[in-house]
Amino acid sequence: MAPPPPSADAPSADARGAGRAPASQRAREALLTIPRGVAQVDFQPSVWTGLLFLIALFVGGWQFGAFALLGVVTATATAHLLGVTWDRVSMGLEGFNGTLIGVAFVLYLGATWSTVAVVVGGAVAGSVLTAALNAVLTPYNLPTFTAPFCVVALVMAIGAPSYGRVWGDHANTAPPSAADPGTAMTWHDFWQGFFNGIGQVFFQDKWYVGLIFLIGLAVSSRVVAAAAAVSSLIGLLTGWWLGAQAADLGAGLYGYNAVLTGIALGGTFVALSPAGAVYAAIGAATAAGLTAGLTNLFNVVGGHTLTWPFVLVAWVFLAAVPIFSKIRRAA
Amino acid sequence: MAPPPPSADAPSADARGAGRAPASQRAREALLTIPRGVAQVDFQPSVWTGLLFLIALFVGGWQFGAFALLGVVTATATAHLLGVTWDRVSMGLEGFNGTLIGVAFVLYLGATWSTVAVVVGGAVAGSVLTAALNAVLTPYNLPTFTAPFCVVALVMAIGAPSYGRVWGDHANTAPPSAADPGTAMTWHDFWQGFFNGIGQVFFQDKWYVGLIFLIGLAVSSRVVAAAAAVSSLIGLLTGWWLGAQAADLGAGLYGYNAVLTGIALGGTFVALSPAGAVYAAIGAATAAGLTAGLTNLFNVVGGHTLTWPFVLVAWVFLAAVPIFSKIRRAA
Amino acid sequence: MAPPPPSADAPSADARGAGRAPASQRAREALLTIPRGVAQVDFQPSVWTGLLFLIALFVGGWQFGAFALLGVVTATATAHLLGVTWDRVSMGLEGFNGTLIGVAFVLYLGATWSTVAVVVGGAVAGSVLTAALNAVLTPYNLPTFTAPFCVVALVMAIGAPSYGRVWGDHANTAPPSAADPGTAMTWHDFWQGFFNGIGQVFFQDKWYVGLIFLIGLAVSSRVVAAAAAVSSLIGLLTGWWLGAQAADLGAGLYGYNAVLTGIALGGTFVALSPAGAVYAAIGAATAAGLTAGLTNLFNVVGGHTLTWPFVLVAWVFLAAVPIFSKIRRAA
Repeated sequence: MAPPPPSADAPSADARGAGRAPASQRAREALLTIPRGVAQVDFQPSVWTGLLFLIALFVGGWQFGAFALLGVVTATATAHLLGVTWDRVSMGLEGFNGTLIGVAFVLYLGATWSTVAVVVGGAVAGSVLTAALNAVLTPYNLPTFTAPFCVVALVMAIGAPSYGRVWGDHANTAPPSAADPGTAMTWHDFWQGFFNGIGQVFFQDKWYVGLIFLIGLAVSSRVVAAAAAVSSLIGLLTGWWLGAQAADLGAGLYGYNAVLTGIALGGTFVALSPAGAVYAAIGAATAAGLTAGLTNLFNVVGGHTLTWPFVLVAWVFLAAVPIFSKIRRAA
Repeated sequence: MAPPPPSADAPSADARGAGRAPASQRAREALLTIPRGVAQVDFQPSVWTGLLFLIALFVGGWQFGAFALLGVVTATATAHLLGVTWDRVSMGLEGFNGTLIGVAFVLYLGATWSTVAVVVGGAVAGSVLTAALNAVLTPYNLPTFTAPFCVVALVMAIGAPSYGRVWGDHANTAPPSAADPGTAMTWHDFWQGFFNGIGQVFFQDKWYVGLIFLIGLAVSSRVVAAAAAVSSLIGLLTGWWLGAQAADLGAGLYGYNAVLTGIALGGTFVALSPAGAVYAAIGAATAAGLTAGLTNLFNVVGGHTLTWPFVLVAWVFLAAVPIFSKIRRAA
Repeated sequence: MAPPPPSADAPSADARGAGRAPASQRAREALLTIPRGVAQVDFQPSVWTGLLFLIALFVGGWQFGAFALLGVVTATATAHLLGVTWDRVSMGLEGFNGTLIGVAFVLYLGATWSTVAVVVGGAVAGSVLTAALNAVLTPYNLPTFTAPFCVVALVMAIGAPSYGRVWGDHANTAPPSAADPGTAMTWHDFWQGFFNGIGQVFFQDKWYVGLIFLIGLAVSSRVVAAAAAVSSLIGLLTGWWLGAQAADLGAGLYGYNAVLTGIALGGTFVALSPAGAVYAAIGAATAAGLTAGLTNLFNVVGGHTLTWPFVLVAWVFLAAVPIFSKIRRAA
């Protein structure tokens, strides 16, 4: 008859009325929004997944971990101060776009104090954009996905060269194929591309970092980890069949959008039936196929592909569900 | 008292419950979705119109007819397998975007086996996008028009050069004015441009192919054929007055978006009153005027104008109707 | 007990049923839509504000005043003829996009007869687009802002070079920093940039023209004038801190979008609480920061920044309000 004890993985009922809980409890709940915000990049509310993701980022480079923390804290605090419901804040749903803003900005602009300021500004703008998109997309029963991050990072990448203080010490962002052209995929490209497809969701291009991310997913759900692995393969094979550059395949550039799309459509937002699994696989392949088009499009103005293919494909495939009697939304 | 006999031009009541009809009847209904899907590019549900359109495409070149068939069948079958209602499928409403995907892809990528695979993939993606747009646009009482085709073909055109297997033997797509510059329109430009404005809806640039399309429209409705003819003239004259390249005018490049807009706003979706006719004419002229802007925009990334001007102008002019007390939607 | 006398600043009840009022009254009400349409560019319904704005435009150059009048009259007349409710027409809400279309087109295309024709066509298209956007945005309780103007002017700027008759004698549109590069802001840049930030809403780059606009705002509302002044400063300082070109700062190019955003969010559409004021200030800074991104984006295709940063930021910040319990819409 006793209520279940609060677990680290689900916000307690008390936390929902956070204003009335004792201070230590409130501080603990506030702290837990940080790993949850990181884990929600891959749709997971698990604190342990978030901690593993943070470890992966620090293994990839201290600046990725540090700026991810800066982004997730700024975004979450902004949302809370502006009065977003604690339900969303406590689940990490207000933090994941900020996480990616931090990682992307430090990658493109370098680890400088001006980047710190730009990440804070970008995360604030991202939080407002998250709210605006939620208001607009709710009638269609669609989540924002990483669209706020994509918009903020795109605008930053296009505008930054005009700003002397921002655009100083930024990293080189040519694709791997620029130095190593050719479409013949080696075994090395293949297995590294498989893990990098998972790591590139967070802009990481070392296979063991991708492996830590995969373990982080498995901690939250075996099904999700399996969906991610299969989708990374689908993305890799789609790009390979179309004749994409092998070095880009090996860096995971055709995998990460397929991974996110596969997780989103494979059980998270679409019910996992046989037809649903085919639907998710088609979605993952579509996201991979869309990658080159968006990359070429954004290259013209100095933008980056980011997770745009995932966002656009997942929106389209989710919005279409009510029309298709063979496909059902997840409960 | 007897029910009217089923005609080739309207799906019978039995067909709507296709699962219960005898197999021969179901096969016949399934077959009829093919010409209807082709005819629906110009908003007509008539089987005879669709057959004439197919003849026109084969006269334009065997590959246009063959890939149009591939596209319409793939798109219609995808929609049916995913569970779209038979009402929409039987009317050809799930086929017309696939038709155009087939024609456009073979024009831009050449008649190769890899193009066959890309058309199939593109038609599947186009069917999902059709459902998504229908879900989003229904609250505004707007049809998808050819937007799914425009999106899929745009993305393909931008991305294809990055894919070695896809981008091999593709056709040259410079505008006619590249070889023959100048803004002085000759009588030859004028009368050929009139017919080509109708044929370019299907990317055809021979006057007699345009004439077959016009006959196909007249078989379905004299009013629609008249609207198409007048709109082709409006587009031609708008482009000429603005000072567009004469060779492009002669190829019908300023006509086809005006033609589709004129049919859509001139009786199909907007009631044909005197004010409605003026409104449709303004819409047709706007679509023609918008052509150069979108052409220049898409040229930057290797995209093509397609029927984007029509889609955007027709959406805007239809969405505005509830605000304008002098204009009424068609019943 | 007597009803308040009709004032020049608010349409009388009689005017709402304009068809029944005597002819002289109807002519007077129709005339008043002109200055109101000009004033609504800055959200003010005041006739006196509109007259001061018109004076400012004529001080800036006869062609700006004359083409603003052409645009506002064409747009308002189109809306009225198509049957928009008199409530909107009489308040000037159907005129302000036409005003800006007139000013922008004469700036970019020169004061020629072909520009007259293009302004008329653009204003007609802008009126239809205004209605379409109103139909789409009403469910979200969002105004169109200057989006119709932005779309029409963007499309014109991209397409015009393809039209021999339109693209003749057009003005040079390189930014001031092209001739005078450098990021060190002088006192001269600063105080001129402050006034130009207000004048650039109407494309004016002389400080005394900006001053007349500020006086025009103060005639309608001291609070609005204060919001405009503070926002111009915010835009200037945001651009300066980011390291923008000093000559562009001095020309007001980082101010005008902040000014419009500050007025829109600072009391006009968002209630003016302490949290609301911070929200408006963040919005104004965001609009300024977004300026370079959109400028670089549109430069690729020959477009211009226009008031796009304001439109996009104000939409996002307004759409987000229902999610934020600390922020309230104005009554």
